[in-house]
Amino acid sequence: MKYLVDISVEPIGTNSTSLSKYVKIVYQVLKSKNIKFYPAPSMTTLELDDITQLGYIIKDIDDTLAKEGVKRIVSILKIDDRRDKENSIDHKLDVIKM
Amino acid sequence: MKYLVDISVEPIGTNSTSLSKYVKIVYQVLKSKNIKFYPAPSMTTLELDDITQLGYIIKDIDDTLAKEGVKRIVSILKIDDRRDKENSIDHKLDVIKM
Amino acid sequence: MKYLVDISVEPIGTNSTSLSKYVKIVYQVLKSKNIKFYPAPSMTTLELDDITQLGYIIKDIDDTLAKEGVKRIVSILKIDDRRDKENSIDHKLDVIKM
Amino acid sequence: MKYLVDISVEPIGTNSTSLSKYVKIVYQVLKSKNIKFYPAPSMTTLELDDITQLGYIIKDIDDTLAKEGVKRIVSILKIDDRRDKENSIDHKLDVIKM
Repeated sequence: MKYLVDISVEPIGTNSTSLSKYVKIVYQVLKSKNIKFYPAPSMTTLELDDITQLGYIIKDIDDTLAKEGVKRIVSILKIDDRRDKENSIDHKLDVIKM
Repeated sequence: MKYLVDISVEPIGTNSTSLSKYVKIVYQVLKSKNIKFYPAPSMTTLELDDITQLGYIIKDIDDTLAKEGVKRIVSILKIDDRRDKENSIDHKLDVIKM
Repeated sequence: MKYLVDISVEPIGTNSTSLSKYVKIVYQVLKSKNIKFYPAPSMTTLELDDITQLGYIIKDIDDTLAKEGVKRIVSILKIDDRRDKENSIDHKLDVIKM
Repeated sequence: MKYLVDISVEPIGTNSTSLSKYVKIVYQVLKSKNIKFYPAPSMTTLELDDITQLGYIIKDIDDTLAKEGVKRIVSILKIDDRRDKENSIDHKLDVIKM
């Protein structure tokens, strides 16, 4: 069973309207943790076998952003937990190619 | 000035766990209204020159889903309104390719 | 028929981690437009008879924030469109009091 | 340091448009885990000292819903991680009372 988690991170009070630097940091954290993800303009989609990892991932992302000087981080998440059928990023990509 | 709007539509009480049919309907409505959009596994990103269109788009999507028998529709949106620099789907795609 | 719209506004690049000033502005815009709303720590819930108003409301909020110097605004919305039964803030408050 | 987490749970494919039963389940899980929360019409706000709990909370909620027959669960979360100042539900309630 896989959980699909969409995530978007908004740093608050950073003095800059550009977010690309922070998007890059999120990707680096995900790579360092060997998490499969799919980047999109909207949100980043993660594929998790074990949802109990989620809090640790958020902590790592936020700690890394805090080291870069970010003092407040608002994250938006959408979690898709499907139990009747195997869910995956690849399956979702098939759906949107319809 | 462009608004980027990410949208995800969740039909409630439909008796089926599959959402692909409803994703297809959302794409059809967006195409019929000539709205530029980018499909992603997470959410669909729309590029709007005029944000006052937004409510009409939601209404069209919901009315079309209601005709298909959906009685409750929960939509999740993230609106990105950047005023210091031109925002676009193409710019966001450049950022995520980093 | 009523649409319930939850909204949360995140100003980006404002140099301050405090958001209370911006929450106040959102409430003022909603009051000036005579929109029924319920404030919560999470998001603000709006009750709309006509969803086509939504884009105009977003525009008014964003324009007001821009006048206050905010150059990028990310808004998160959840729209609940229920067609089989009258939906309302009061009904939702009954549910959560259970 | 406290994390404020807003959560909204949408069961998919349940044959019923009513969500109140599922809201009640979410509250019961939160109570059984001794998590401080604030119910609102929009989303439920949780106060977490340790964000690494988050995945376990989601798992408990989803497992409980699955036992009730729900086969697909979409959850929406907003996480507010403020590092320069103590964050709390009580502080947020003060802000919205302004």
